[in-house]
Amino acid sequence: MLIIDQLIAEINRKASPIVVGLDPEVAHIPGFIKDEALRTFGPTSKAAAEAIYRFNLELLQEIHALVPAVKLQMACYELYEADGLDVFRRTVESAKDLGLIVIDDSKRNDIGHTASIYAQGHLGRTPLMDGEADIIKPDFLTINPYLGSDTITPFLSVCQENNKGLFVLVRTSNPSAGQYQEAIVQGMPLFQKIAQDLNNMGQSLLGKNGYSPLGAVVGATWPQEAAILRKIMPGSYFLVPGYGAQGATADHVTHAFNPDGYGALINSSRGIMYAFRNSQGGQHAGNHTDYTSAAVRAVTAMRDDLLRSLRQAGKLPANW
Amino acid sequence: MLIIDQLIAEINRKASPIVVGLDPEVAHIPGFIKDEALRTFGPTSKAAAEAIYRFNLELLQEIHALVPAVKLQMACYELYEADGLDVFRRTVESAKDLGLIVIDDSKRNDIGHTASIYAQGHLGRTPLMDGEADIIKPDFLTINPYLGSDTITPFLSVCQENNKGLFVLVRTSNPSAGQYQEAIVQGMPLFQKIAQDLNNMGQSLLGKNGYSPLGAVVGATWPQEAAILRKIMPGSYFLVPGYGAQGATADHVTHAFNPDGYGALINSSRGIMYAFRNSQGGQHAGNHTDYTSAAVRAVTAMRDDLLRSLRQAGKLPANW
Repeated sequence: MLIIDQLIAEINRKASPIVVGLDPEVAHIPGFIKDEALRTFGPTSKAAAEAIYRFNLELLQEIHALVPAVKLQMACYELYEADGLDVFRRTVESAKDLGLIVIDDSKRNDIGHTASIYAQGHLGRTPLMDGEADIIKPDFLTINPYLGSDTITPFLSVCQENNKGLFVLVRTSNPSAGQYQEAIVQGMPLFQKIAQDLNNMGQSLLGKNGYSPLGAVVGATWPQEAAILRKIMPGSYFLVPGYGAQGATADHVTHAFNPDGYGALINSSRGIMYAFRNSQGGQHAGNHTDYTSAAVRAVTAMRDDLLRSLRQAGKLPANW
Repeated sequence: MLIIDQLIAEINRKASPIVVGLDPEVAHIPGFIKDEALRTFGPTSKAAAEAIYRFNLELLQEIHALVPAVKLQMACYELYEADGLDVFRRTVESAKDLGLIVIDDSKRNDIGHTASIYAQGHLGRTPLMDGEADIIKPDFLTINPYLGSDTITPFLSVCQENNKGLFVLVRTSNPSAGQYQEAIVQGMPLFQKIAQDLNNMGQSLLGKNGYSPLGAVVGATWPQEAAILRKIMPGSYFLVPGYGAQGATADHVTHAFNPDGYGALINSSRGIMYAFRNSQGGQHAGNHTDYTSAAVRAVTAMRDDLLRSLRQAGKLPANW
């Protein structure tokens, strides 16, 4: 089954259009996890990375039944170089073992052959001197389109060879998103032109649910732009950051969904990972139940919030 | 001394505006290096990474006196995940031990706090549970500006705290560069607007030679655009890819230099690394002298070529 159809199957099975972001930072994870890693590995890069892995794993074990996908923010892992990439890989493996779709949020970009190397590394095959490495890779990768089709095409080729998908940055969630993304090309804002190009590239790749593996990142903080993009690229799934911590509400994100209630995956990172900081006991999590149960409550509340808004907008899928 | 002035000092000391790209791929490095790594480490990711390290190290030992800087293409290292990042770090250390300025060509981009994490990881400080990791980091990083000033500012802050610099993708060397980079904003092409913004941001950061640590990537394959950009951002050093393998000549790249012969660093990767494939003996390098001496000859020929064109353009620095 095409990866985009696998994603939709998981969304349906869990009746949940949510992706949990795993962007762990040592400064914010519970003290008891850090203390144990420090005792075992000393004040090393490995201790920091292992604390992150344990934090991720315990979250994954509790939330995997509630969401179809997780998104790993690469910045948080490559900060710890080799130790961090080891933990990135193990987190991907653990998430996939639990049946989750995994999005690698790396925003990679380069031209031609170099883009192919990035694509092979993140989604495809790692060439050894004799054969290929046996590595479980993520299912989707985020990429940045500023370099033009010379950057998109090589990533897309590797996706087609390996049944993987992309989310291309189209309209980002940050305040200065419009600064360059609204430059005008062929009479329309650049982000709309990129959306049009992506929609054209995806036409021949539509799966059985009418979506291609060529998705788009569309910030929840720009509901009007999301509504326009939704029309330009009906066959692209949207990865939607900005709900919660960046100020977008469930009502804002309904614009990113197609009329049938599909087409968008809403991300929350800090709002789930660090939910324990806002619950009873304040900043402290004394054991793993304290933070994993706060995360479960936060995911459940987010799902209720999204489904209520989808229902109000007349977009709730019939079978949820 | 500001990192940009250190770079200019090295350019002057070696009378050479060249950066050698280290973008090593297992498929292309000499067989005897691969054979030895395979014997030592077996058919593993570590063997591939160690073959790359040895190839890099022997090149660095021979070319370091001829060039001010090297540029590491991150795609080639992260392909091997933890093993690759270990070799990336050791290559950075070896290059800096040999007195070279190191450019980390990662084209990173993200917003706000996440951009800061990338910046700390590549150029700044790695937080441990207790203190910071003691890691030698590169001197410059390439970044992608599509997300607007929310991506540039956090990288720049980390640069200022750690005396590091950036090369921002402005006009890339690939055929489809203009597709999105020529969208119109405030009456000018997007790549010119970004150049203007960068020039404004760099004004307060100019070093003793009149350059800021906020440089730009300007493809050698677009000489007319380079001439325009040179006027828009006189205080930015240009990192110029596309000479040689991508078809740009020494005459093309003279447009990237200021009238005094400074302001541009011309990159060649495959043309130097794999020069042995074009020399006597064809595709084979039987020992390390075969490929390192071919690389030395290629760097020397490139320097002669660039200096001849700079002289013809009336731009050769007086003291070279």
